Amino acid sequence: MVRIAVDAMGGDHAPDAIIAGALLAARRLQIGLLLVGARDTIERELGRHPGASSVDLEILDAPDRIEMAEPAASAFRRKPLASIRVAAEAVRDGKAAALFSAGHTGAAVMAAHAVFRRLPGVDRPALATIIPTRRRPAVLLDSGATVECRPQHLVQFAVMGSAYARVALGCEMPRVGLLSVGEEESKGNELTRDAHQLLKSAPVHFVGNVEGRDVYSGEADVIVCDGFTGNVTLKISEGLVETVERLLLDELSSTVGTRVGYLLSRRAFGRFHKRVDYSEYGGAPLIGLDGLCVIGHGRSSPKAVRNAIGMVARYVREGLVTRLAEQVAQADEVRHHS
Amino acid sequence: MVRIAVDAMGGDHAPDAIIAGALLAARRLQIGLLLVGARDTIERELGRHPGASSVDLEILDAPDRIEMAEPAASAFRRKPLASIRVAAEAVRDGKAAALFSAGHTGAAVMAAHAVFRRLPGVDRPALATIIPTRRRPAVLLDSGATVECRPQHLVQFAVMGSAYARVALGCEMPRVGLLSVGEEESKGNELTRDAHQLLKSAPVHFVGNVEGRDVYSGEADVIVCDGFTGNVTLKISEGLVETVERLLLDELSSTVGTRVGYLLSRRAFGRFHKRVDYSEYGGAPLIGLDGLCVIGHGRSSPKAVRNAIGMVARYVREGLVTRLAEQVAQADEVRHHS
Repeated sequence: MVRIAVDAMGGDHAPDAIIAGALLAARRLQIGLLLVGARDTIERELGRHPGASSVDLEILDAPDRIEMAEPAASAFRRKPLASIRVAAEAVRDGKAAALFSAGHTGAAVMAAHAVFRRLPGVDRPALATIIPTRRRPAVLLDSGATVECRPQHLVQFAVMGSAYARVALGCEMPRVGLLSVGEEESKGNELTRDAHQLLKSAPVHFVGNVEGRDVYSGEADVIVCDGFTGNVTLKISEGLVETVERLLLDELSSTVGTRVGYLLSRRAFGRFHKRVDYSEYGGAPLIGLDGLCVIGHGRSSPKAVRNAIGMVARYVREGLVTRLAEQVAQADEVRHHS
Repeated sequence: MVRIAVDAMGGDHAPDAIIAGALLAARRLQIGLLLVGARDTIERELGRHPGASSVDLEILDAPDRIEMAEPAASAFRRKPLASIRVAAEAVRDGKAAALFSAGHTGAAVMAAHAVFRRLPGVDRPALATIIPTRRRPAVLLDSGATVECRPQHLVQFAVMGSAYARVALGCEMPRVGLLSVGEEESKGNELTRDAHQLLKSAPVHFVGNVEGRDVYSGEADVIVCDGFTGNVTLKISEGLVETVERLLLDELSSTVGTRVGYLLSRRAFGRFHKRVDYSEYGGAPLIGLDGLCVIGHGRSSPKAVRNAIGMVARYVREGLVTRLAEQVAQADEVRHHS
């Protein structure tokens, strides 16, 4: 049975939502758990779940936790027994196959980066987030692991993102777009203009710059950008969808006719929500490292945690890290021979 | 009567949508026009509008135009008779009070920057876009004029954005937020971390970092970022609203019950659209220069052009440039005395 290390202390609703979601995943999807965090807190929380005893579950004591407001680098140095760090070490040492955390994203990136090795040919890891588009899901990376990027990092993201799209979305020939402020290669900032030139000869199916407007229209299967831009993109989107729903509900409930319309439209809203809700995907893998870490949304609900842990187990079974390593190595070879 | 110079050749639907919108504005809002572009093309287009003769209208011949796909800098150098450049020079020379263009944004920024002087205390101009939020409209800048920024540019944007929010939104004490990837001051990239420190002692009401998620929730009245991030933010938003509408309509029309719901909800959709539709605002002023240029969306419809020209005339009457200059100078004085 695949065993997944879970950072029980990471997330706005930790440990309760994390443990509840982990137990759901373990029971429904036949997954073993390594719950990492303060042992007494975890045991107390497990006591509230009568079914927990039927699950293949171990606890790994890690008395410290990194709070959302702490600067990642100094917290990581000061807290060698932080749950996220202990969990990453457990994966490195073979006690679990991979890791899930819904905690401090910067701390999780730092822990994975410090504990796992980088894949050959990769200088910086990237968070690869699956986003819905009008056609089919696409991958956006980096969505927050590497906020300062050089052009060659974006090229590596393009190669890794293509490999990830093959594994995660079954997309055999992913079209790679570079997120910029205009379609023409002369548009953009220094980073994107230089990256554009490198991508033209990179071993990926590069379709050119994509503007923000085209991210959700499905013009590309892999959208590449620096981690600052990617993170802003995702959070803007999340906030905007919430705002649009709120405004629409205001309008729909403001008259009798539309109130009826609203009632009738509820199912439609529900299905719509399912298509854009982050918790359906659950998390984003940090790729480019010799170890798998999936990072969930800070606000993860039990359902989001369950889905994310299911994603981790699936990627373990499908050998995501090995396949990424192979494809990055192949791309590297192409580059050195051309 | 206020006379506005209009780049008749700029925009995806130029010159027809531009001229139709300009005539609407002129007739309804008592505005004089200086239509700048190829004289024969403009005259032919005017021939299709029988009411045009009742409008206070002059034509300024400018045989060249800058195409959307041209790199702004070289096109600007090679085409001294491009409509956008001739229009800016007309404003400089007092033939019109201000300028509107829905053409190549980079070319418009370059023309205005080259022809007008910068206000004392301003190193880079910014495009200031009004965005809807859950509470009340806010200003986002820079939305695309200056794609590479240094920290002090963001501070100047904060001062200018505050002044603009007072004039445009009647917001007396605008809360300024710095767009970044986390609320804590330690989060972000080098640019935002350095800008955060400078903003803490700047003469604005700085409320700290705002994450993408909070842009549309109304946490700040003025949102400051570099032009690359701002442009991506706006275009992502535009594309996402279109996609959300499309997906919702798919869902709403997929069953009989919801089809009825959809019909009943149409009015609500209409009103919702009015709240998020860019054409209601029409354009974004380029601020920081000693001359007013409002830049419209490339896809501007006649209605959007009419609203944008109305906005230009209002800002001329209210002395936007003078008020911006005064407030930037005041802030500069505070800074030098503290």
